[in-house]
Amino acid sequence: MVTTFEVEEMLVPHAHATATMRAAVFHGVDDIRVEEVPKPHAGPGQAVIRVTMTTICGTDLHIARGEYPVKPGLIIGHEPVGVIEELGIGVTGYAVGERVIVGAITPCGQCNACLSGKLSQCGHGSGYEAIGGWRFGNTINGAQAEYLLVPSAQANLAKIPDGVTDEQVVLLTDIASTGIGGAESGGVRIGDAVAVFGQGPIGLCASLGAKLMGASIVIGVDGDDNRILFARKMGVDVVLDDRIVDVVDEIRKLTGGTGVDVAIEALGEQSTFENALRVLRPGGTLSSLGVYSGKLQVPYEAFAAGLGDHRIVTTLCPGGKERMRRLIEMVRRGKLDLRPLITHRFKLADINEAYKLFGSRADGVMKVAITP
Amino acid sequence: MVTTFEVEEMLVPHAHATATMRAAVFHGVDDIRVEEVPKPHAGPGQAVIRVTMTTICGTDLHIARGEYPVKPGLIIGHEPVGVIEELGIGVTGYAVGERVIVGAITPCGQCNACLSGKLSQCGHGSGYEAIGGWRFGNTINGAQAEYLLVPSAQANLAKIPDGVTDEQVVLLTDIASTGIGGAESGGVRIGDAVAVFGQGPIGLCASLGAKLMGASIVIGVDGDDNRILFARKMGVDVVLDDRIVDVVDEIRKLTGGTGVDVAIEALGEQSTFENALRVLRPGGTLSSLGVYSGKLQVPYEAFAAGLGDHRIVTTLCPGGKERMRRLIEMVRRGKLDLRPLITHRFKLADINEAYKLFGSRADGVMKVAITP
Amino acid sequence: MVTTFEVEEMLVPHAHATATMRAAVFHGVDDIRVEEVPKPHAGPGQAVIRVTMTTICGTDLHIARGEYPVKPGLIIGHEPVGVIEELGIGVTGYAVGERVIVGAITPCGQCNACLSGKLSQCGHGSGYEAIGGWRFGNTINGAQAEYLLVPSAQANLAKIPDGVTDEQVVLLTDIASTGIGGAESGGVRIGDAVAVFGQGPIGLCASLGAKLMGASIVIGVDGDDNRILFARKMGVDVVLDDRIVDVVDEIRKLTGGTGVDVAIEALGEQSTFENALRVLRPGGTLSSLGVYSGKLQVPYEAFAAGLGDHRIVTTLCPGGKERMRRLIEMVRRGKLDLRPLITHRFKLADINEAYKLFGSRADGVMKVAITP
Amino acid sequence: MVTTFEVEEMLVPHAHATATMRAAVFHGVDDIRVEEVPKPHAGPGQAVIRVTMTTICGTDLHIARGEYPVKPGLIIGHEPVGVIEELGIGVTGYAVGERVIVGAITPCGQCNACLSGKLSQCGHGSGYEAIGGWRFGNTINGAQAEYLLVPSAQANLAKIPDGVTDEQVVLLTDIASTGIGGAESGGVRIGDAVAVFGQGPIGLCASLGAKLMGASIVIGVDGDDNRILFARKMGVDVVLDDRIVDVVDEIRKLTGGTGVDVAIEALGEQSTFENALRVLRPGGTLSSLGVYSGKLQVPYEAFAAGLGDHRIVTTLCPGGKERMRRLIEMVRRGKLDLRPLITHRFKLADINEAYKLFGSRADGVMKVAITP
Repeated sequence: MVTTFEVEEMLVPHAHATATMRAAVFHGVDDIRVEEVPKPHAGPGQAVIRVTMTTICGTDLHIARGEYPVKPGLIIGHEPVGVIEELGIGVTGYAVGERVIVGAITPCGQCNACLSGKLSQCGHGSGYEAIGGWRFGNTINGAQAEYLLVPSAQANLAKIPDGVTDEQVVLLTDIASTGIGGAESGGVRIGDAVAVFGQGPIGLCASLGAKLMGASIVIGVDGDDNRILFARKMGVDVVLDDRIVDVVDEIRKLTGGTGVDVAIEALGEQSTFENALRVLRPGGTLSSLGVYSGKLQVPYEAFAAGLGDHRIVTTLCPGGKERMRRLIEMVRRGKLDLRPLITHRFKLADINEAYKLFGSRADGVMKVAITP
Repeated sequence: MVTTFEVEEMLVPHAHATATMRAAVFHGVDDIRVEEVPKPHAGPGQAVIRVTMTTICGTDLHIARGEYPVKPGLIIGHEPVGVIEELGIGVTGYAVGERVIVGAITPCGQCNACLSGKLSQCGHGSGYEAIGGWRFGNTINGAQAEYLLVPSAQANLAKIPDGVTDEQVVLLTDIASTGIGGAESGGVRIGDAVAVFGQGPIGLCASLGAKLMGASIVIGVDGDDNRILFARKMGVDVVLDDRIVDVVDEIRKLTGGTGVDVAIEALGEQSTFENALRVLRPGGTLSSLGVYSGKLQVPYEAFAAGLGDHRIVTTLCPGGKERMRRLIEMVRRGKLDLRPLITHRFKLADINEAYKLFGSRADGVMKVAITP
Repeated sequence: MVTTFEVEEMLVPHAHATATMRAAVFHGVDDIRVEEVPKPHAGPGQAVIRVTMTTICGTDLHIARGEYPVKPGLIIGHEPVGVIEELGIGVTGYAVGERVIVGAITPCGQCNACLSGKLSQCGHGSGYEAIGGWRFGNTINGAQAEYLLVPSAQANLAKIPDGVTDEQVVLLTDIASTGIGGAESGGVRIGDAVAVFGQGPIGLCASLGAKLMGASIVIGVDGDDNRILFARKMGVDVVLDDRIVDVVDEIRKLTGGTGVDVAIEALGEQSTFENALRVLRPGGTLSSLGVYSGKLQVPYEAFAAGLGDHRIVTTLCPGGKERMRRLIEMVRRGKLDLRPLITHRFKLADINEAYKLFGSRADGVMKVAITP
Repeated sequence: MVTTFEVEEMLVPHAHATATMRAAVFHGVDDIRVEEVPKPHAGPGQAVIRVTMTTICGTDLHIARGEYPVKPGLIIGHEPVGVIEELGIGVTGYAVGERVIVGAITPCGQCNACLSGKLSQCGHGSGYEAIGGWRFGNTINGAQAEYLLVPSAQANLAKIPDGVTDEQVVLLTDIASTGIGGAESGGVRIGDAVAVFGQGPIGLCASLGAKLMGASIVIGVDGDDNRILFARKMGVDVVLDDRIVDVVDEIRKLTGGTGVDVAIEALGEQSTFENALRVLRPGGTLSSLGVYSGKLQVPYEAFAAGLGDHRIVTTLCPGGKERMRRLIEMVRRGKLDLRPLITHRFKLADINEAYKLFGSRADGVMKVAITP
């Protein structure tokens, strides 16, 4: 985790650039301004895309509120859909004008972490630097802008097929990839029972991922009326309101006393983490997607019920154009439709209103679409 | 493969038994007779079930035609649904009168093969005897009878929940388990493209398995009008008629030139095996379910396109009550409905008519249900 | 975890038995008595072995001290080597007089947990009862006796080849299986760097397991002179004394700043658990063998360095005759020699002295051999 | 497989280059000439290394003999050790003068194949083009030269630690990576029995790989006196001479009748492929490394003994700097020493003598070292 301000210098727009663009720039806590900044240019191996749609992530809220530190002056956002504007030397197989998405995580594909299959732990070239693959709107300029500079473009530009719209793919860049990744990390098998704690956008995508992998029952858990409604609407088999029912008891009952094969935590709280452990069958897997703060307590009598064999796996949004390609195929073939999650639409100029609405959870908001 | 007649003596009905039952007995090529035979009794660790429904498998046809040798006098069939009639000593957690299914493969759970997770290679106790887990209607009496003696009952009786009918589960005992197992062995991931060669009952179940695991496109291939019709009806995304189209070309086109991630062979012919290899993308997996005869030729220039990294996996119907339980859950939760495949129904007394129809593929037959 | 006294009634020696034997019986805290008790008989599916060697486990110390509750009257111990004395009906492929070992965990092979490959979570027949596979000296009579009743004998009797001695195999029954299992669960690959926290008998076996799997460097950590000495003697590549060095710093240095691919925790303390997380490279695996008490705190900033992708797996001694067979093969072929760990030898009659020595860690004791 | 002459134009030395170097150039069948050619320069993302040691591969013999077609004018060889001479723009974390090895396969890390973990199937950028990752001495100039242009340098330069010599690492670039990769693909577990057919350099490395992964017994098979001798010298547990013994019978005996868990084919002949299948236990894995020609016949009655569950995996040398790094660590820590395999040494100027000796298998030659 990046705990100090850090900006990767090579990717900062050149001071002498003359063309400009509009972008949402972080200036401090609760101070995001849409302003004119230099338009980026593509160096070797990079690309610039003209952003046609993006969205706001829960992580962006943490940044706006100062809970996750980024350097003032940074353009935020990490969920881009766009059109290729410029290709740096060395990027092949693409043409200016092609429509693409880029994942929130932008692995280089060429460091030790990437080459051993850990794309989200990308070390940006040489080794295992633990910088991590998340750079957009974190250590380099992000997607809430008119143009976006894409590092390691060869590994990250995923083409959008004809007939597929921006709204169909914008949520693939992060929440669908992360949520579905949580189901994949959990190793869901045909016939498994799965519980997903938290039915916000990522948790809901985890529920859909478990369904796509063949779970016999997906049990969603939340305590927010709107999210419960959405989970039911999107086809989660059973949705439990944790304000009303004893979730652990209820899940045990639903699984004939056995517990679930896979529990997915998508909220990041101590209580949901503990409940996720408590509802696991012996030998089950806890797939953890939530971002916890401080120390997390593992109730070992639950962890090791029957003395063990549980697995806990954590998943950060896996990126790369190949993963985006597979998800785009699901959309194109009609197997995954996340458009209902996009409840509100804003222009980039009005992004502060979008932040306000998204942060308030008012008016049934799930995800917002931002267009230029 | 058992190439000589073999009957496991300990499981032959005792000569002194007085109660009798009706059963379909193999007497020789094209000579199956429904006749009165001794009713079995349950020894230690065994159970007897009263068969309420069974079906006929393609393998039974091979037996009837003398293409797969079994000992004259054997009761054939390996797909039982029934009610527990008698429990041998040492079988716990069950009660007479409970409804159960038993898989075609009856692993003991206690030999070296089973304990290392290779249930279909069960060695019946001690080691890795390569006898294999398939016993019903092969080396011991089978399911096309009023009563069935179940070996290793503790590992093989899978309870049927209330509200689930015999017709809903009878195909889980073999074809669904085998077909879905082929998709599982192939390692289908969310977004993968999958081709399934052969859309008979097993191939169709393989197609459904690939869909259940999240394939973005499942391409079924067959050359039989009825099977093509069924595949479309059951939701296979694209069904190719190999009498009309160049399958390899067409599949390449459907996958943007890349080939499929997983190809499943469910017919057992040289040509489909070769085509399955030819449509694989570099690094793809061929999951082989077909039963080939004689020498199979691997066209190495296809096998090793780009010098390799293909995998070929073979799958025999995996058994055991845990697998049956997971599949039953899919049925119970409405995620898997194979009833449309049961096109015809017969009484045990008329099983020769059922064999005739099933063998002829006439009248749109896919699977037949046999009841007492 | 069993938190109340529980004895499985069907396996209690019959009251009317007339033959007797000597056994170490738990009567209360610090009150183990070697006394005359009924000799067991083999029911269906069971076997009786005449114990020729056994040992004392750290878990037995917890029992003796009252830290892990068992019912007074229970014979303790779970690491048997012996000779088959009696075979119950239904057990095939064995003969009275054959030498065998039996793992500490005695899976039935026939419940849902076993049939899905989770042998240590054995539910004893029907389902996933979370009773767990550990029964000897826990819920049924154990191995510190002249004779031992073995449940699910077919799945648990592993033959000892000629020329292999009792001392060569006695530690396979638990510590070697558990320790090596920790390396296996961790997924050690050729060339990996591995750190093992705790170099007691189990931690040392985990170190040896990592070496056997091809680790390029195994770093053992302990703070006990004798254990450090033993680890060096047994070939652990680097042994760190955590009383002297900053373990996290030192391991980072030894791995060129990257951290280890796999960390194994074999002590069960908060500090070693945290350190194990801190020395992991991004995307690495923590394999947890230690038995923790109370709540375990996960320092999330370490758990999720770089926002994630760590795995935590827990392992309970995997059992079953197939696993024992593989480990016996390692011994027979000279690839695994644990005899140096057996530092002291006692007669069963003197087992209280053995407990005292083993509990005190005096005189360089690592493991004790107990013979009749 | 590349079946027509093909040279990737962007990587051909520029015609206007003025500096020259000595290199082994393929001019036609049995016509390799050491001659003066333009010295390469590093474009974006590329590097030039000064080759300090290389070797000759069996594949180079196929090229020299015209059995594998390459374009006349191509510099051959694919096993480079060297010193960084020049770094193209965009390559970071390296310095001119650093010692490195580069694998025979040079994955880009940024195409769909690489990003899904199939490095040896690298599509060089965009997708799954099935060109394959092997480029050196195949589609671009190779390593039997004074200087070598390295594509995708960021993903392929693996640093050599101080104190490690060229001779210690030269065989890691291909044969050790391929041979050990065959053991890894086979999934060798602690205690497994493994048979390796062919004990040439790659087969011998497969044997060593199986040992490193914890096999209880590795059985090498060959029919060449020198190779049998080498296999014994390098520590293969049992070496069978297939001119003298019935290999299938003997391996069955050595494994107590069961067969091996993993068979590795490293010769590429019909007979060894069949034998490898015949010695597998039910459910075992055949890992195929040999390069077959024409149609390969699978004796299905062996493939499907007991009706199945065999796996056949093929492995092409996996590349990338991370894999090289792990292997280098094994060498540096003294766990892998392949120096005994280097039996002869030549200067680049005398490489035709080296080809002649290596091709003749005379004088006990296993591998030759070529230095400038």
